[in-house]
Amino acid sequence: MSVPFVVQARCGDARAGLLQTNHGPVETPVFMPVGTQATVKSLASGDLEALEVRIVLANTYHLAMRPGARLVRDLGGLHAFMAWPRAILTDSGGYQVFSQKGRRKIDDDGVTFHSHVDGSPQRLTPESAMAIQADLGSDIAMAFDECPPSDASRDVLCRAMERTTRWARRCVATTPAPGQLRFGIVQGGADLGLRAEHLAEIAGLSFDGVALGGLSVGEPPETMHTVVREIAPRMPAELPRYLMGVGTPADLLVAISSGIDMFDCVMPTRAARNGRLFVRGGHINIANAVHCIAALPIEEGCPCETCRRYSRAYLAHLFRVKEILYYRLATLHNLHHYLALVRGARRAIVEGRLPEYVVERGLAGAA
Amino acid sequence: MSVPFVVQARCGDARAGLLQTNHGPVETPVFMPVGTQATVKSLASGDLEALEVRIVLANTYHLAMRPGARLVRDLGGLHAFMAWPRAILTDSGGYQVFSQKGRRKIDDDGVTFHSHVDGSPQRLTPESAMAIQADLGSDIAMAFDECPPSDASRDVLCRAMERTTRWARRCVATTPAPGQLRFGIVQGGADLGLRAEHLAEIAGLSFDGVALGGLSVGEPPETMHTVVREIAPRMPAELPRYLMGVGTPADLLVAISSGIDMFDCVMPTRAARNGRLFVRGGHINIANAVHCIAALPIEEGCPCETCRRYSRAYLAHLFRVKEILYYRLATLHNLHHYLALVRGARRAIVEGRLPEYVVERGLAGAA
Repeated sequence: MSVPFVVQARCGDARAGLLQTNHGPVETPVFMPVGTQATVKSLASGDLEALEVRIVLANTYHLAMRPGARLVRDLGGLHAFMAWPRAILTDSGGYQVFSQKGRRKIDDDGVTFHSHVDGSPQRLTPESAMAIQADLGSDIAMAFDECPPSDASRDVLCRAMERTTRWARRCVATTPAPGQLRFGIVQGGADLGLRAEHLAEIAGLSFDGVALGGLSVGEPPETMHTVVREIAPRMPAELPRYLMGVGTPADLLVAISSGIDMFDCVMPTRAARNGRLFVRGGHINIANAVHCIAALPIEEGCPCETCRRYSRAYLAHLFRVKEILYYRLATLHNLHHYLALVRGARRAIVEGRLPEYVVERGLAGAA
Repeated sequence: MSVPFVVQARCGDARAGLLQTNHGPVETPVFMPVGTQATVKSLASGDLEALEVRIVLANTYHLAMRPGARLVRDLGGLHAFMAWPRAILTDSGGYQVFSQKGRRKIDDDGVTFHSHVDGSPQRLTPESAMAIQADLGSDIAMAFDECPPSDASRDVLCRAMERTTRWARRCVATTPAPGQLRFGIVQGGADLGLRAEHLAEIAGLSFDGVALGGLSVGEPPETMHTVVREIAPRMPAELPRYLMGVGTPADLLVAISSGIDMFDCVMPTRAARNGRLFVRGGHINIANAVHCIAALPIEEGCPCETCRRYSRAYLAHLFRVKEILYYRLATLHNLHHYLALVRGARRAIVEGRLPEYVVERGLAGAA
């Protein structure tokens, strides 16, 4: 079997790599826009192609509830369903299920919970989570893990780790879709000892990549940065490293500098819809009255479709009158900002100047 | 002064023409998508360009309330504001104001009403409606008219006609924006005698085009068709003829066959958002369960962006989970359907085969 991931360049702990998937190559570090319900909210697949997105994330839990994994499979798989010819990573549904506090019951075999759509009882096990992802036909399937809350005690963290390891073994024992890669997930909260211990366990299984889960779940950013700085460099060097659900532009540069290769986060898309638009070193809030009379774009010189054509005043108008177009234009800009940030980091790694890049982007304080 | 409109071909009462505006030529018959709040809901100006839209309608009342005509003027006018380089027609605000039943007071000088945004008292007169449209800088400004309800008595219709004529004289006495064309509006309800009488009055003023207002306001379609069939052929032959707020695909072909040149209607865009998607000779409702498993596009062979790429099953999913993308994809299809219908009618007029075209489009029953 060919090696799906190669590291092409290094700069300190940071790496520039190339991940081969069933649906094309993915240069890393890479930011994966979140397409929870088989759409990156407000964007068409053609918009994502124009943004040069190479891989998106889709949520197994949401798609299993609606429209259902079997239906997606019968329609030719998730790529055909959402008309997206490039790579897709699916999460395992674990995070969404464990977020249903008090509404789900966990046992050693799996989790029983209620559908957010109709309240019907549902069950996920390591085997069914992988089977759903095989039906969806994603390029990368994530192992089914237990994600404890950020304020969990050491005992709870330990039990979640142990269960996640047992479940990880069951996940790798299932049959993936042809060519589907599978990533394991490291838990352990903010406890560096537990993280290192769990990393060793997950790295010992035959996964194609390793992810850090259970971060950016409410803990202070500094805590998350400490875990990433300590743990990322010890993750298997030959495998892609994925930091799940992170984060701000500063978080991304901290993690890239520590050797993380892959990211997903709702931040750019959700922030866009809420009026927060990223600019170099910070953001503007389009709800502020000052933007209503501003003929300038969100960011001068930004080559995104929105900034090339539209003023802050127009966006402020669309936002205030709640026009659908606002969401698309804002999302296009914020995603462009994130994608350009991470692509710039990749170039800086190849050129051996990542620390300088972090300073140029105005994010040296956090990073 | 050059003649802004020429008739290039005729087929029975139908005409194919060319209207020159400050922002480019418009081939007629033409359908104008409705961009109430300076956006055709869910679409960017680039989407409209890709649809080969040459002229859109924007609503004076809504833009005067938010963001305000002076602000739009200070930002370079409506074209700059919404980043739309082609033609814009603005209505006069009359229709919106008169729709505020019981909340507006009419006198011979104008109308006092309440803002739908903050309830504040507002006033529109023929002079202020034209001044707002001059500030917006539209290519075609509509006269400020009184639009009576469809069940109005003959007395009410007469008074509205007389007032509309007096106001029309005041509208043509104002100073337009440079190069701005101005259209008068013919009222008279479903009374053919009143319509003919009012047409003679409006046609006697120095307008650049003549519109039929006060139709498609609740009367049966057959009533509207009768008025259009009787009145359209008597409208000035050398001026563009505009049927306001109409209608279904069948309505459009009836009116085109009767000599109407211009249309606007929220139907294709609003119907799209409600799940009604037009196909040849009819429509489908994407909310119907049968579409959830349909791998075929909305319409086989339709060259629109949506049909080229997405299945009914995907659209049905997006509609059910209320994803923003649904609205854009549905709007793109329905607008394409309307635009293609009217462009096809233009070609058929030029080729002298409009009656055959009406049959081919499956709309012979109504037309």
